[in-house]
Parts: sequence; structure tokens; C-alpha cells
Amino acid sequence: MEKILFFLTILPFLCFSEQTFNNLIQLPEINEPHLQKWSPDEIKLHCLSWRVAVEANNLSPWKNIPEECADYIKEYMTGIGYIFDLKRVSNEAGIYAKSVDLSGDGKDAWIFDVDETLLSNFPYYADHGYGLEIFDSTKFDQWVETGMAPAIEPSLKLYEEVLSLGFKVILLTGRSERHRSITVDNLFRAGFREWDKLILRSPEDHGKTATIYKSDKRSELVAEGYRILGNSGDQWSDLLGSSMSTRSFKLSNPMYFIP
Amino acid sequence: MEKILFFLTILPFLCFSEQTFNNLIQLPEINEPHLQKWSPDEIKLHCLSWRVAVEANNLSPWKNIPEECADYIKEYMTGIGYIFDLKRVSNEAGIYAKSVDLSGDGKDAWIFDVDETLLSNFPYYADHGYGLEIFDSTKFDQWVETGMAPAIEPSLKLYEEVLSLGFKVILLTGRSERHRSITVDNLFRAGFREWDKLILRSPEDHGKTATIYKSDKRSELVAEGYRILGNSGDQWSDLLGSSMSTRSFKLSNPMYFIP
Repeated sequence: MEKILFFLTILPFLCFSEQTFNNLIQLPEINEPHLQKWSPDEIKLHCLSWRVAVEANNLSPWKNIPEECADYIKEYMTGIGYIFDLKRVSNEAGIYAKSVDLSGDGKDAWIFDVDETLLSNFPYYADHGYGLEIFDSTKFDQWVETGMAPAIEPSLKLYEEVLSLGFKVILLTGRSERHRSITVDNLFRAGFREWDKLILRSPEDHGKTATIYKSDKRSELVAEGYRILGNSGDQWSDLLGSSMSTRSFKLSNPMYFIP
Repeated sequence: MEKILFFLTILPFLCFSEQTFNNLIQLPEINEPHLQKWSPDEIKLHCLSWRVAVEANNLSPWKNIPEECADYIKEYMTGIGYIFDLKRVSNEAGIYAKSVDLSGDGKDAWIFDVDETLLSNFPYYADHGYGLEIFDSTKFDQWVETGMAPAIEPSLKLYEEVLSLGFKVILLTGRSERHRSITVDNLFRAGFREWDKLILRSPEDHGKTATIYKSDKRSELVAEGYRILGNSGDQWSDLLGSSMSTRSFKLSNPMYFIP
């Protein structure tokens, strides 16, 4: 009897579901040239869905943000949404960091990426359409060489937390070895200190994807005896591959993609 | 001169950034009991941020959705947002599947999870607060035993695509071996056919987390000679661990978390 009652309760949903579960709303197909027919609300939904797909690592390599999402991404980056997400990931990472039993032998490591993880290139991207323009490495290098990238404050908070808990901090960045000095200056100016290692791309790493380069470096760290317990990065290529961290934290970044 | 001009251009952003980058908006701290002071828009932003954190695998294990997000999650699941996201992940996976060179030796594999990946338990969760209620395995089993879970249509489309491309489909589910027969019935009723293997939890797998259980099963597949080229799942525990797929696709699911 209970089963029958249960079944009767869900019957309306089943009928709804079986017949019309996905046909209820006939959205224009994504990736088809119907965009001009979409309402502003549909465009917004499409761009939110695109941003979530970026964060869930569902997209193929992409070179710039979809043109129709320029306003949405600008609004997200300049509004409270981005800061909200940065605070959340910092809080979550902090909760995890406090829960870890450290061995205290100097080999408990937390890896941080640099750009869009510790340092913000917001001022540069604000001037380049928040990812709408195709990446220009010459112009970006000029920006890097100013050494003026501000700290991402929630990351600085996490950075200080993990240091005070006794983690060794390792900075692993896709920046080139030739930018070591300006990167150190910039990190100091932004408040980051006391790292154990700052690993930059040396000439032999330049042909590698970020995933391979960072995996190789993590494997070297593991070979040196480090236990990689936490890893913070804004790209999935900071986090996936071999010698992965026990837990990873993906900071929001809808502006660019590094394979 | 060019450098000075460049610097002058970005100066306003630097000033903004250095002094007030993260202090511009003083949001109440997340995870603190300020929720009652939040406006409906702030609650919505908080719940969107929570959902994105779920999809980016940033959260610690959680048992049910935040109470204040009940309305937001219901709206997402019953509105067009969820279907939009499901269509996108299916499209992206299809684009990738078509780009893969298959060897044609019968060992090119695509793994699908079952619940919330091929079959939808939407009718069940509609009756249980879309993740607001703590999971009740007895009630859920009663639902599973009806065998009436509908297909997630965008996944059925992808399923047929990967089959027609020549992939071998392997279903890897956390459902128990005792539900094999009803699961087969349900999959057939929903339109899924021609899988190579349907792997369910046998008694010796019951103490394992999903991540370990699914990693073990993937490793067995690799030992049998399969190349795991694609993997679709709604939980990160479907996708991460050892013997990971070349590419993974995370279907949206803000209703529950399986470690």
C-alpha cells in the first residue's frame, strides 16, 4: 500500500518527465547561429552556462570569450560576483587546510599558481575587454614587467593561513624564468612572502603545455619528498595531470584559458 | 614613451586596484551567520556562487543543499538553466568525441555514469526538496525499484553519437549489483542500448568511496586493454582518481554530493 501511495505521489512528475522532460522548453540549439534571436535574458543564461562550463572544465581549448558574452563577463568581473567567488574558494581552502594533520617535517606542501591566483591582472584585462581580445603576449609582458599586479586579497588571506599552519608554500607559475626578478618584486609588493620555492618556466619547459610542465614540476617535488596536500590555481592545467594534490581549489577565471 | 603612455592608461585601474581592489564592496563574510541581513539578490548571488563551487569541485563533502538556497536550486532545476547546462555538456562532449582518432580495435571506450548522467531522478528529487532533505537510501531505493527514471535527453543524444562513432560504451554506476535487473529495464525503457559492460557495485565494493570504487574499475578496464577516451558523470567522484579518462565531462548536479 505504501508503495502504491508513493507511486501515486510521483506519478504526475513521471508523466511530466517521460513525455516532456526535455521538450518542455524548445531552446535554440547552442553553437548554432540563432543568437540574434535570443532575448537579453537568454543571452545572459547562455553566458552564465558558458562560465560554469569553464569552471567545470567542460570546454575545449578556447582563445577568447564568446563575443556575445563580453558584457556579461565584464559585469561579472567588475561586479561583486567575482569577489564573492574568490572569497568562497579561499574560505573553503582554509577550512580544508585547518583539517589536515601535518607531519611537521618541512615536507607538507601547498602549491599556489601566481597569475589570477595570488596576483591579479585585472588592470590589464580591464584594458583588453576582459578576455574578449585575443591574448597578445608582447602587451601582456609589458604589463608583467611593471610589477604592479595587485594581490587577490582572499588568496593573501589563505596564503598567510597556510603558512601559519605550518605548510611549506611552493609557487608554481607559467611565467618565464626571465621574469623571476620582477615577479619576486611584485609578489613582495603585494604582500606575499616566505615561500619555499618559486618555480618558473625555464627554457626547456617552453614547448610544454601548462598541464605537462606543472605535472613534471609536481613530480619533481614529490621525488624530493614533498607531500602536495593543497593546490590553488585559476586554470585546470594548474591542478590536473600527474602527482596531483590531495585537494585542489579552482579559482574563478572566465577571461582566458591555458591548456 | 610608449611605455609611459601605457602606464598612464592603466594608472586609474592600478590605483583602484591597489587600494580598494577587494575592499570596494564589504560583503558579509560567507559561512558566518549574517544571512538574515542579506537581500534577496545577495542570497541569489551566494547560492549561484555555491552552485559554481559545486561544479568546480571546490566544496568539502556536503550532505544537503544550504537551506537558504532551497528556492534558488528549485528554480534552477525546474527552469531552463539546468537543461541549458545539460545541452551544453552534451554538445561539448560530442565535439570532442568526433575529434578523436579511434583505433577501431574495440578498445576505444567512453564511460557513462548512470544516475543524473543517463537517467534522471528528477521526479524523486522534486518530491524531496531538490537536495534539501538529507538523503534517505530506503526511499531512494524504492524509487530506483520502480525503474521509471526518464532519460536525460541530451545524454541520450551523446550516447547515440559516441556509439555511432565506434566507441565502446561502458556504464559504471554506484548502484548496487542487486539492482542490475531493474537498472537494465530502466535503461532500455529510457532508450539506452548496446553497452559493452554495465558495472555495478558488488559486495566487495560497498565499503569504498565512489572515487576509489570507480578508479579501481577504470584500472581494471585499462588492464583489459581499454583506452578510456571519454568519461561523463555528474559527480567529480565519477571523473577523478586513477586511470582517468583523456577528457572528462561534468554534468551539472547541485542536488547531492557523492564522495
